[in-house]
Amino acid sequence: MKLYTYFRSSAAYRVRIALNLKGIGYESIPVHLLKNGGEQHDDAYRAVNPSELVPALETEGVTLGQSMAIIEYLDETHPMMPLLPPDALGRARVRALAQTVACDTHPLTNLRVLRHLKGALGLSEEDRNAWYRHWLGEGMRVLEAQLANGAATGRFCHGDMPTMADCFLVPQVFNARRFDIDLAPYPTIARIDAACVDIPAFQAAHPSQQPDAEG
Amino acid sequence: MKLYTYFRSSAAYRVRIALNLKGIGYESIPVHLLKNGGEQHDDAYRAVNPSELVPALETEGVTLGQSMAIIEYLDETHPMMPLLPPDALGRARVRALAQTVACDTHPLTNLRVLRHLKGALGLSEEDRNAWYRHWLGEGMRVLEAQLANGAATGRFCHGDMPTMADCFLVPQVFNARRFDIDLAPYPTIARIDAACVDIPAFQAAHPSQQPDAEG
Repeated sequence: MKLYTYFRSSAAYRVRIALNLKGIGYESIPVHLLKNGGEQHDDAYRAVNPSELVPALETEGVTLGQSMAIIEYLDETHPMMPLLPPDALGRARVRALAQTVACDTHPLTNLRVLRHLKGALGLSEEDRNAWYRHWLGEGMRVLEAQLANGAATGRFCHGDMPTMADCFLVPQVFNARRFDIDLAPYPTIARIDAACVDIPAFQAAHPSQQPDAEG
Repeated sequence: MKLYTYFRSSAAYRVRIALNLKGIGYESIPVHLLKNGGEQHDDAYRAVNPSELVPALETEGVTLGQSMAIIEYLDETHPMMPLLPPDALGRARVRALAQTVACDTHPLTNLRVLRHLKGALGLSEEDRNAWYRHWLGEGMRVLEAQLANGAATGRFCHGDMPTMADCFLVPQVFNARRFDIDLAPYPTIARIDAACVDIPAFQAAHPSQQPDAEG
């Protein structure tokens, strides 16, 4: 498998965690999101993924987009170390937690949106930071409420083994730290993040450990 | 089952389509997203769904959030009229199409974001419309490219039976029409939307057919 990735992309980070948890070897193909206006907009990458976003996974002769669809695919084709629980209600809960990040938090704070706020709307850095903090805070508030009040929450988001939800939580926390967001209001998130960071699969997926990492 | 819904919410519309395609009866509990600043922010609803978003589905004594997680749950527990194809690559494709809407398009154009652009950023109606058209257009461009170039595209998004991807496409097209977006650049999307509109399950899920519909 080949993973089109950027070290700091939190969507690519999710997939790297899933690949590592399952012990699936893969080749990293870095796509630099900042250089020359962004390599993701080059014709070559657009042919790979018309969304001009990372990650994309090349497998079985096709290219898959969307981190959540990719992780579901990995879980179906590599059942060892399942990333979804065995019961339908549990799977719904794990997917909903992941989607709190994937649908309600990250899309509002990713690079293309911050660029648009600057370029098209002319927002100051201060206003862009306020935007970021608002939507990230809203997403973290909801995730914390879901986790703190969920009877199924264990050492990890769902029980005592990592699931797809943890693959989404950790990169979101990484983003929060990069922007100096105080994690004190989110104790359950912080506790689960700390449990994940103990696991080599999570460590190896960290942005700093990628071949394209920058200081 | 009880569905917390708002007639015009495109996320609730997706779940209504899935429920109807599977012939699952349900009770509609309307949550008015505009009245009194939005009933979704009331304590009563926040206890149901801390994200303060619709839809939410009450089933088996618990409440599920997130339209995509809900539809996956319905598909797993009601296997008749499957909404995902039988092969892993096909499922990945259908999920990725749905996520192009759920992650890359709708989160940037929903009510809470438009309100924030007005309230917190003080954007004019003209600038809010430009924002809407930009992100909706970007999402539609990607969806059109994925569908027009996909060998698996048939009468519907994936083959000749509706899938989860169609549950996401139709409400997004409904939103585009509401905002007078020209669909001419998206002929494959428009063709699939027309095929869906022929099906009673899609018709009955339309905002105009809901108990809380307004003129």
